[in-house]
Amino acid sequence: MAYGYWGKILHVHLDSGVMTVEAPEDAFYRAYLGGSAMGCYFLLKHTPRGADPLGPENTLSLMVGVTTGAPFSGQSRVAASAKSPVTGLVGDSQAGGFWPAELKAAGFDGIVIHGASARPVYLWISDGHAELRDAAGLWGSVTGEVEDEIRRELGDARIHVLSCGPAAEKGVVFSSLINLANRANGRTGMGTVMASKNLKAIAVRGHRYPEAASPEAVKALARWGVENLDRVAGLSKLGTAEGLLILNEEGGLPTRNWTSGVFEGAQAISGETMAKTVLKGRDTCYGCAIRCKRVVEIAEGPFRTDPRYGGPEYETLAALGSYCGVSDLAAVCRANALCNMHGMDTISCGATIAWAMDCFERGLLTRAETDGIDLRFGNAEAMVVMVERIAKREGLGRILGEGSARAAEMLNVGQDLVVAVKSHEFPAHMPQHKPSLGLMYSVNPFGADHQSHEHDPFYSTAYADRAAQLGLVDPQPIEAMNTEKLRYVLYTQYFYSATDAACVCQFVFGPSFQLYSPAQLVEAIRAVTGWEYTLWELMKTGERRLNLLRAYNAREGCGAEGDTKPAKLGVPLQGGPTHGVTISTQAWKRQRASYYRLAGWDRRGRPTRGKLQELGLEWVADELDEDCP
Amino acid sequence: MAYGYWGKILHVHLDSGVMTVEAPEDAFYRAYLGGSAMGCYFLLKHTPRGADPLGPENTLSLMVGVTTGAPFSGQSRVAASAKSPVTGLVGDSQAGGFWPAELKAAGFDGIVIHGASARPVYLWISDGHAELRDAAGLWGSVTGEVEDEIRRELGDARIHVLSCGPAAEKGVVFSSLINLANRANGRTGMGTVMASKNLKAIAVRGHRYPEAASPEAVKALARWGVENLDRVAGLSKLGTAEGLLILNEEGGLPTRNWTSGVFEGAQAISGETMAKTVLKGRDTCYGCAIRCKRVVEIAEGPFRTDPRYGGPEYETLAALGSYCGVSDLAAVCRANALCNMHGMDTISCGATIAWAMDCFERGLLTRAETDGIDLRFGNAEAMVVMVERIAKREGLGRILGEGSARAAEMLNVGQDLVVAVKSHEFPAHMPQHKPSLGLMYSVNPFGADHQSHEHDPFYSTAYADRAAQLGLVDPQPIEAMNTEKLRYVLYTQYFYSATDAACVCQFVFGPSFQLYSPAQLVEAIRAVTGWEYTLWELMKTGERRLNLLRAYNAREGCGAEGDTKPAKLGVPLQGGPTHGVTISTQAWKRQRASYYRLAGWDRRGRPTRGKLQELGLEWVADELDEDCP
Repeated sequence: MAYGYWGKILHVHLDSGVMTVEAPEDAFYRAYLGGSAMGCYFLLKHTPRGADPLGPENTLSLMVGVTTGAPFSGQSRVAASAKSPVTGLVGDSQAGGFWPAELKAAGFDGIVIHGASARPVYLWISDGHAELRDAAGLWGSVTGEVEDEIRRELGDARIHVLSCGPAAEKGVVFSSLINLANRANGRTGMGTVMASKNLKAIAVRGHRYPEAASPEAVKALARWGVENLDRVAGLSKLGTAEGLLILNEEGGLPTRNWTSGVFEGAQAISGETMAKTVLKGRDTCYGCAIRCKRVVEIAEGPFRTDPRYGGPEYETLAALGSYCGVSDLAAVCRANALCNMHGMDTISCGATIAWAMDCFERGLLTRAETDGIDLRFGNAEAMVVMVERIAKREGLGRILGEGSARAAEMLNVGQDLVVAVKSHEFPAHMPQHKPSLGLMYSVNPFGADHQSHEHDPFYSTAYADRAAQLGLVDPQPIEAMNTEKLRYVLYTQYFYSATDAACVCQFVFGPSFQLYSPAQLVEAIRAVTGWEYTLWELMKTGERRLNLLRAYNAREGCGAEGDTKPAKLGVPLQGGPTHGVTISTQAWKRQRASYYRLAGWDRRGRPTRGKLQELGLEWVADELDEDCP
Repeated sequence: MAYGYWGKILHVHLDSGVMTVEAPEDAFYRAYLGGSAMGCYFLLKHTPRGADPLGPENTLSLMVGVTTGAPFSGQSRVAASAKSPVTGLVGDSQAGGFWPAELKAAGFDGIVIHGASARPVYLWISDGHAELRDAAGLWGSVTGEVEDEIRRELGDARIHVLSCGPAAEKGVVFSSLINLANRANGRTGMGTVMASKNLKAIAVRGHRYPEAASPEAVKALARWGVENLDRVAGLSKLGTAEGLLILNEEGGLPTRNWTSGVFEGAQAISGETMAKTVLKGRDTCYGCAIRCKRVVEIAEGPFRTDPRYGGPEYETLAALGSYCGVSDLAAVCRANALCNMHGMDTISCGATIAWAMDCFERGLLTRAETDGIDLRFGNAEAMVVMVERIAKREGLGRILGEGSARAAEMLNVGQDLVVAVKSHEFPAHMPQHKPSLGLMYSVNPFGADHQSHEHDPFYSTAYADRAAQLGLVDPQPIEAMNTEKLRYVLYTQYFYSATDAACVCQFVFGPSFQLYSPAQLVEAIRAVTGWEYTLWELMKTGERRLNLLRAYNAREGCGAEGDTKPAKLGVPLQGGPTHGVTISTQAWKRQRASYYRLAGWDRRGRPTRGKLQELGLEWVADELDEDCP
């Protein structure tokens, strides 16, 4: 193995306290790379068919990638994988920070958590050693406190901690995992799974950073990145909110529970306004020169916010802002901090509140049901209060903590106002504005997700050289959902999927407006591993991951019937450039059928045995048994 | 276009004499690259469904590739494509020489011949101009004479000529196209098609070699090739015959019409013996440093051979040697020269004579039917005489000129002794020795072919770094035809297919024991074109070409029913390490079904609409209409 310091997966059996180390062969790392591909591998291997997501039979994996810890931008990421309590299918979520690189420096590429502990524990990993420690005193603590307490207890201020918050302990279905008090594995309820195992946190400390096969090539890549930082100047300056105003101008900013694509308060919650007002600094992840993370401080007023809990990303500004019609930036910052403290996904949280507001405005929910809260769109205070109630499972918050889809079911109202697929709320990019998202939100294995393919229709012209690296040579912008566009969706999906396997940041590693190109990701993997690696192998790994995830869902009995389209996309948008736009069910069904064909799946959207075999996943086909056509 | 000198396809309409120039866009070249991918594109576009291969509605394409003419080893190749008179399906054949680079220097990437001329003509292309000239005086001339005569007539000794020989004029079904009097587009009867159009030759002369986007990168690649020539030392020294003795030792040298895998006369027809005896020199193709071509001279005796007609390749030594039990090297050299003079495929020619010998030995053909020739295995003189009779269509030669499969039908004997798929005789690598060939000979679109995937089972271990570039990371030799082996077959097939699209020499550009690796082919294409090219795009082009060819066959009504296995593979081999070996029909059927699945085809072996769409070939799916599942 050229890369001396990888090859160890830690298995933690919470029932017995036994820990074992698995040392997979080099070929395993080449086939899966890390991240969510490896996570889904372990999920398929260790979680039985039909497992309860919150039962001990579920398996939670935290995986980094082969390049994690190498000193260039965008490599310090961790993927969490488990059966999701949100979707009942495969769960998948990525986060950055320093924890991922620290785990690598501590000697592991990944952790698989089996079973459940009888009492609260946390896992302490230090330079190749691991132990379970009592977490009774940490139970109920918010994420920042957990971090402080563990550092104090172990006497090392440089320990990094990934934990679930009190929301997870209370069973909020969309609970996140938080590290550094503000980096979130936000989506699909991975925090909820961790809490269900009585595992509060994973603390790591390591001193041995892996040595790259070619340190010179790593340095060259890092140098190129620094020299070309102006490619991502907007991201550095404004964070992920850099595009908010443009989206709003184009009618692509989801507003008032997706009733409109334009928000009159967009300016107030924009990256520009944030930079001019509450921004106190920029933060980063291990080795990353971009510094896209926002640090905000609100010292006064009702929405006081501690800088350690971070500033809102674009998704958060939308979900807790425009989704709810809220234009009070301080309120959004406060709500964001509450989510990070209590460990909740800001997207699902904001979207669920927006759904409740929509119901309230329509008289489907009354003040009696909202515990007296005037849950109108635009009521910033009500939004913040509701975040807190969800976290604490108080009043209506108890039900909203189940997410919008299940809340609609439980309350038997507003089912047609839910904007989710597989019970997973839509992120803040609109199919009515970027048509391919209508398809992708439906077919993505872990529910609606905006980071699973390139959805900018102008990407192919603006970044023709990068599109071409993926074999997308058409020089025209492809807005129509024709076959060329479907190829574009599928190939960029393979690439995005590969970045989630390699476990690198999609804001750093292409394929569109980001810093490094797809070919440079290949260079990065070569430089670190010494493998004769190519984009062909990388893309095939992306395809492998996607098929693994779909195969997991197929094993759980879910194919096309789970690839739905919310009724709300059939309701014409109001105002702005996207006024009147709907997503036609007929066209969408046609696209979905074509997409399955292009992906090499059957009519029910399940990977075929042939496709799995082609990808070296015959074992998955055997696992699927009669579910595999 | 970065590469100033490409982008022109010459269409020649022989009926009217009209010539037009098509200037495809850059995207077209990226999608098809050149060679047989572009050839099959034009075949599908311009040859109607159900065309008679020898009728004017057939279209003959001669295509070079984007890198042709750039000064590094292995780039001067031309692919001939047409509906094949041998198979009645897609025809496909490659050759080297100086003609391909000369065509590029004359301003064209390819020529599409439509219709048929009323009288014999030849095509003269010179620095962007093209004209049809009278060829009445050339009709009936052997290839070397045609070359001399055209050079004389046009007054330029540096003109390069590609022509069909007298065999083609007489309708020998496996007639080749010959350039430089010894370089052959040998297989699938492309010469027969050219002669059927009353087109005798294509003469080219150009003075403007294309300029590469990065001349420095081209130079670096060429330099690396020269510095690493020892990688292909065997090929330089012994030609393609370098492996003959090893194959014989392993029981993999087809002997006496595939009755045995060992030949007692192997030493006598080996590359080593050739080098020590008749070899007069080594020749090469434009820009190639390897010089693998043999020049032999036999000045005395019954088998006198003019050096200009070249020396035998491995395939020829086997087909005209061991297939026929002939160990007289001079006879094989003479027969090879006759094939090149008269323009015939040495493989089909030798294999057909071997089949006739097998029949003769079994008493299925008598001396009356052989015109008195004692057509026993090992009779060198009989073999040479029969080559000449086939070329001239005299006596039994008239029937043998139809190839072994049709001859067996016409004579109604020895059908079970025919070693061919799609009426296309087996080349000299044995499925009984290299198991994956049993599958590949069946499924290859233009009939049995040994250059369509990597068939050496030890390649994956000996060249792990190169195998890995194709995503084949398994470190074990894969001899068993399990799923891993099928992946290996499919992925190496995509790569070989890509080399036939790029139109580069497979003895120079990987993926196994050759000079350059797959990644270096990508570099070569980048250096010449300036494209942001990757191995992903290249492999997808390989897959695209393979699916194009299969789609053409599907359009002609042929799927799995054409992917057969000769009965003779079920007969145990006699003697040597492969004594007793057979290819089981049951196992082979299972492999074929799995292979279809892995390739993304339907149960009848036809590309699905989804696979074609994924590859950007929706137009082909539309063309196939109801034939496309």
